[in-house]
Amino acid sequence: MPNPIRIRCFHLAVLLVPAALAAQSPPDTSFLARYRPAAGRLIAAATADTAAWLRVAELTDRFGPRPNGSASLERALDWVLDELRRDGLENVHAERAMVPHWVRGAESLELSEPWRAALPMLGLGGSVATPPGGIEAPVLVVSDSADLFTHADQARGRIVLFDAPYRGYGVTVRYRWMGAIWASRAGAVAALLRSVSPFEMRQPHTGVTHYDASARAIPFAAVSIEDAMMLHRMQGRGQPVVVRLVMSARTLPDAPSRNVVAELRGAERPDEVVVISGHLDSWDVGTGAMDDAGGFVAAWQALLLMHRLGLRPRRTVRLVGWTNEESGTRGGLAYRDAHARRLGDHDVAIESDAGAFRPTGFGFTGTDSAYALVRRIGPLLAAIGADSVTRGGGGTDIEPVMERGVPGMSLDVDGPRYFWYHHGNADTVDKLDPRDVARCVAAMAVMAYVIADMPESLPHPSNAPTRR
Amino acid sequence: MPNPIRIRCFHLAVLLVPAALAAQSPPDTSFLARYRPAAGRLIAAATADTAAWLRVAELTDRFGPRPNGSASLERALDWVLDELRRDGLENVHAERAMVPHWVRGAESLELSEPWRAALPMLGLGGSVATPPGGIEAPVLVVSDSADLFTHADQARGRIVLFDAPYRGYGVTVRYRWMGAIWASRAGAVAALLRSVSPFEMRQPHTGVTHYDASARAIPFAAVSIEDAMMLHRMQGRGQPVVVRLVMSARTLPDAPSRNVVAELRGAERPDEVVVISGHLDSWDVGTGAMDDAGGFVAAWQALLLMHRLGLRPRRTVRLVGWTNEESGTRGGLAYRDAHARRLGDHDVAIESDAGAFRPTGFGFTGTDSAYALVRRIGPLLAAIGADSVTRGGGGTDIEPVMERGVPGMSLDVDGPRYFWYHHGNADTVDKLDPRDVARCVAAMAVMAYVIADMPESLPHPSNAPTRR
Repeated sequence: MPNPIRIRCFHLAVLLVPAALAAQSPPDTSFLARYRPAAGRLIAAATADTAAWLRVAELTDRFGPRPNGSASLERALDWVLDELRRDGLENVHAERAMVPHWVRGAESLELSEPWRAALPMLGLGGSVATPPGGIEAPVLVVSDSADLFTHADQARGRIVLFDAPYRGYGVTVRYRWMGAIWASRAGAVAALLRSVSPFEMRQPHTGVTHYDASARAIPFAAVSIEDAMMLHRMQGRGQPVVVRLVMSARTLPDAPSRNVVAELRGAERPDEVVVISGHLDSWDVGTGAMDDAGGFVAAWQALLLMHRLGLRPRRTVRLVGWTNEESGTRGGLAYRDAHARRLGDHDVAIESDAGAFRPTGFGFTGTDSAYALVRRIGPLLAAIGADSVTRGGGGTDIEPVMERGVPGMSLDVDGPRYFWYHHGNADTVDKLDPRDVARCVAAMAVMAYVIADMPESLPHPSNAPTRR
Repeated sequence: MPNPIRIRCFHLAVLLVPAALAAQSPPDTSFLARYRPAAGRLIAAATADTAAWLRVAELTDRFGPRPNGSASLERALDWVLDELRRDGLENVHAERAMVPHWVRGAESLELSEPWRAALPMLGLGGSVATPPGGIEAPVLVVSDSADLFTHADQARGRIVLFDAPYRGYGVTVRYRWMGAIWASRAGAVAALLRSVSPFEMRQPHTGVTHYDASARAIPFAAVSIEDAMMLHRMQGRGQPVVVRLVMSARTLPDAPSRNVVAELRGAERPDEVVVISGHLDSWDVGTGAMDDAGGFVAAWQALLLMHRLGLRPRRTVRLVGWTNEESGTRGGLAYRDAHARRLGDHDVAIESDAGAFRPTGFGFTGTDSAYALVRRIGPLLAAIGADSVTRGGGGTDIEPVMERGVPGMSLDVDGPRYFWYHHGNADTVDKLDPRDVARCVAAMAVMAYVIADMPESLPHPSNAPTRR
């Protein structure tokens, strides 16, 4: 899932761009007539079976979670490369990227007062460790940053717990990103975070955090919503609240990893490229089925269906399975750099990274003229309810090429439960409905095929550092 | 929550008794007119604030989970006794019961193959331990008992996992109750259970199990629904599945505990008793807010409201906070024995143990003539939607006195999520809506007050071993 800062930009984009554009032009009937047969075949093939869901299950069952720097991620990448070749896809290869290598290690949070219990917790990605015996300290619970600044004089020597209620991921995740810095500036010895999720099931949710030069790096971990509220109530009642936090997390030297690539070469303009993608790394809890094995498999199966149905478009469709979405976007950055001179030939980069729930359509970021071209494709997806094409789309991994002018798109889904499971132990394949995963495949296939085949190339912004 | 066998009987009772009785008699308007003022005052007072929810929060926050034999349960009982006295209630005292003392100890389940991960697990109450180093063995996953018997020749030396989908608590909990025995008879070295819950959030759910003389006692633990399904898929795919189960559970000598009692003595017939109750013990995970701090507090606050409003009925209303609902009903049995000669004077025993969710009414078990008397009370609870009075009601703790002829009632609630949290880490007070807890108080107060005050005593069955 996109990093905190990026996702906020997308949300703003959705808000700021007038929706009026959507009503400008009538459906292009000749365009639709030309592509309806291929779209129908792709949709029928995608929704005929549960192959895509089974592939998500196999990928996640075979390798479990796939954290950056881990052997399991690299084994999963090897397996995907083998399967891509077995599928008969073209130009299957890996593209190297060095990724951050944070290792959780043993960790625990014990409530020492007013009673003893192990509280469910997850250290945040990138956090430093505690000393070996842990840090035992009284807790200062604050509701938000203002509350911390109001009570900053009470933070010194304490463990600060941010009990900030969920107000949307893009808003509340700021506490995960900034919490250790804010707490440290106030003199806290460690920080805890109410998990960034709208749903209470005593689950901690991890995710990346960071430090800066303004304050000493202190250990930072997520607790369940329930425990954040309970410790807050205890504080309000005047009960002593003491916890012992133990974390042995380590940041090792960057590790080698890879983006995986496969193609269907274009029949007429093979140097022009439509990228369809998802990421293969995950956090080290759950099995990363929603975030983002399902998204990658949707793109993978989309390419495979074009291949199997003999639908070879004019341009090349390139599948990319990104590494390192979760903690540095090194896969996306490596791709940008390796293909820097060819980005002008990238028509669009599409990413699916919001969970393979029921698709509703696509979000698009690019010029008005490019938007007008892709909007025509929406009606071809009406049969599966994925015909919405709106302004504002992208993804963490494709952001680096979007910043160079490549139009970006995201597969939009009806996934209100995404953040119930996100970055937690319950992100597992059973949460995905095989029919929805199949519809995601269909949506990715139709959108990518038609963009890759239509006569017009998608223009880049006139000021983009890419040609065209 | 009632034990597996009992809850099934209640369900059957609901099914078997013709609903026709419910339509026999028109509302008794003079009866309703007489009790409407008191009912209105109780409902208004109960729903005027969030005092009851705050008390559930305080009880669960102060003492945490309250497993049988623990110091935390006994400290909670001391606190409740003190509070009952501070509330000015009458005849506040404890009644001793010896309870089973099972201690979980350190435990873990590690997936060894096909990849390594700690899987969320909870040993089942009463389970034996593994040897100190644990038991590492290949897993045989079965869908149900028939599947085990079909593949019994493959169970020897393995850890059998029952991946039985949830088909209602009363049906599926049979695997928790019988699983260790069945697996052991087939030669398994340990057993695992897909948690008995309709909801997937990677949570294990504990609960009591047992052994019998037919097979060697083997360790038995619950895993999450997700992991049960995943191991099942792995087996189907031919992947090797090996786990290491470590449990250090111990069953210690029975420990002293107590039922807590408080009363509002009857104005005219103080020897006749209406019992309102919930249980104070819980499992050792979560904080037992739904199961059953909320139920006990609903009964407690009901008594307190009668006291505060000066509503002293003809008969005595007796609040009982049971010990040991979860693993032996020793509180209910001790009460039955201590009051054996007075059970004929018990008009009814009411228990609230289905979570303090929005109340819908009461279930009743007793004679037709007694049912006709209590049915008249329902309309007094129409204002809060709790006016349903149906056949079939009871509770684990009141079962022992019901077996001696005392009519039994349960507070019925609209709690489809009860089994999402039941016996797990997420059974915490935030799941309860303060307005619903207040309505539970109102329902318990009105039902108990009117039964305790109405001219007619509730008859016992003519063949009951109690007088009347």
